[in-house]
Amino acid sequence: MGAPMAGHLLAAGHSLTVHTRTRTRADELISRGAAWANTPADAAARADVVFICVTDTPDVEAVALGPTGILAAARPGLVAVDHSTISPVATRRFAAALAEKGTHFLDAPVSGGDVGACNGTLAIMVGGDPQAFAHIEPLLRLMGKTITHCGPSGAGQLTKLCNQVLVAVTNLAVCEAMTLAKESGLDPLNTIQAVAGGGAGSWQLSNLGPKMVAGDFAPGFMVDLQLKDLRLVIEAAKDAGLTLPATSLVSRLFAAAQIAGHGRDGTQALFTVVEHVAKSGPSDRSS
Amino acid sequence: MGAPMAGHLLAAGHSLTVHTRTRTRADELISRGAAWANTPADAAARADVVFICVTDTPDVEAVALGPTGILAAARPGLVAVDHSTISPVATRRFAAALAEKGTHFLDAPVSGGDVGACNGTLAIMVGGDPQAFAHIEPLLRLMGKTITHCGPSGAGQLTKLCNQVLVAVTNLAVCEAMTLAKESGLDPLNTIQAVAGGGAGSWQLSNLGPKMVAGDFAPGFMVDLQLKDLRLVIEAAKDAGLTLPATSLVSRLFAAAQIAGHGRDGTQALFTVVEHVAKSGPSDRSS
Repeated sequence: MGAPMAGHLLAAGHSLTVHTRTRTRADELISRGAAWANTPADAAARADVVFICVTDTPDVEAVALGPTGILAAARPGLVAVDHSTISPVATRRFAAALAEKGTHFLDAPVSGGDVGACNGTLAIMVGGDPQAFAHIEPLLRLMGKTITHCGPSGAGQLTKLCNQVLVAVTNLAVCEAMTLAKESGLDPLNTIQAVAGGGAGSWQLSNLGPKMVAGDFAPGFMVDLQLKDLRLVIEAAKDAGLTLPATSLVSRLFAAAQIAGHGRDGTQALFTVVEHVAKSGPSDRSS
Repeated sequence: MGAPMAGHLLAAGHSLTVHTRTRTRADELISRGAAWANTPADAAARADVVFICVTDTPDVEAVALGPTGILAAARPGLVAVDHSTISPVATRRFAAALAEKGTHFLDAPVSGGDVGACNGTLAIMVGGDPQAFAHIEPLLRLMGKTITHCGPSGAGQLTKLCNQVLVAVTNLAVCEAMTLAKESGLDPLNTIQAVAGGGAGSWQLSNLGPKMVAGDFAPGFMVDLQLKDLRLVIEAAKDAGLTLPATSLVSRLFAAAQIAGHGRDGTQALFTVVEHVAKSGPSDRSS
């Protein structure tokens, strides 16, 4: 997702330096005028604002604090913005380490997928220093539609994890409703049309329901990444002294989807697992 | 909900005869020109179309097939329309009994609550004979906004039950997300604003989320009725050879809400149970 997001900065006339682990992924941006940096530190040394977009907590740790990471180029006035979805606790640790050099680290995970990244319609949930947020907000507005300052460091990540609870459990609601519709002899598309405009309505129903019915599992948002995010949710819940029963349930069902070979399919592939579990019926006994 | 629905028929200039178990509930309609009938049979004898709006399967059975029920006045050309949410299996039995006298029985459960009934914005999900549906559809359009013919007798009820799976499990998604937000130190209203426009968005989040946060449990749709509908869902799933794990889970949580005294509160009161369960943590072990 980093490439289209960076492309919006370039298109708006900003000077852009890029570093990626797989250099070919930067080719298109470089052909449009971006400079190449050999390391994250090199990129940070040449910029006022540095954006990170990787996968998981250890990836951000390497980019932020590793030997060739942003910390090596940290200085007062630099703002680092992390668009990855990672641990809120680790986020606060990265922010504290960079703060020692006067650099602000803002967590700014996004929602909206590849489509949102390409169209500049992402939701961006930001945690960290309010003044640093105000300073870089115009740049975020080039990449997203709904930009929200959620609180201190980690609050953006926590908000994204709440988002993932909603996304995953609402997806499960759609899976069970579509299973009941299909196995009861209804036309599931007719069911969606009948109910989507009312209290049953959701983004998941309108967007993923028809794909479930059609057996179209092209991603969107991949099962592997949803499962990574649900692991972060369950860790964050544990940190807050909470167990979340439906989130735990859907997490186990996504793990089943992964082991069934759906890891790189879209999250609507959860439907195949729910349908199978519903027909074989173990969950009612075990839950 | 029957009174405002019948009021739309009266307002459109139709001749209306009403019967209710509690006569005072008809006073307002009678003051506006409706006639009173002593029994459902009496009402059906004087009408071309008879609408039923009661609570549960035995109530509809009494109104449709009881000694003073519609069956006693059944004749070719009469159409009976049942707006209650009841068993799809029993619905087919009622329809078969009335069909012997040439009367069509359409299941037509509604979604949208008291507000939808008053504003004429209900979703109405209809099962039964397509020609009988076409005949009465203009009357349904006076009461609802989304009118869908879902299939043969029982298909309206089955569609409503799919609606209730979505409503209840999406509600649970909102409860868990709001619990995580609150207990992690976020401002839950800020969380709703940050995520409601994207893949996490749902009617339940936008409408019930703020009420959960405010502790406003005024109904809307009551926990007692949600629990009755979830019992019908689980029966229908069993009839189709299915167990639905999240629906089973949310059904148990609504039962806990009922026993905690929230039966006549709105379904957003589920939040109090989810918050308590999340903090005391038994569900992660048992599910």
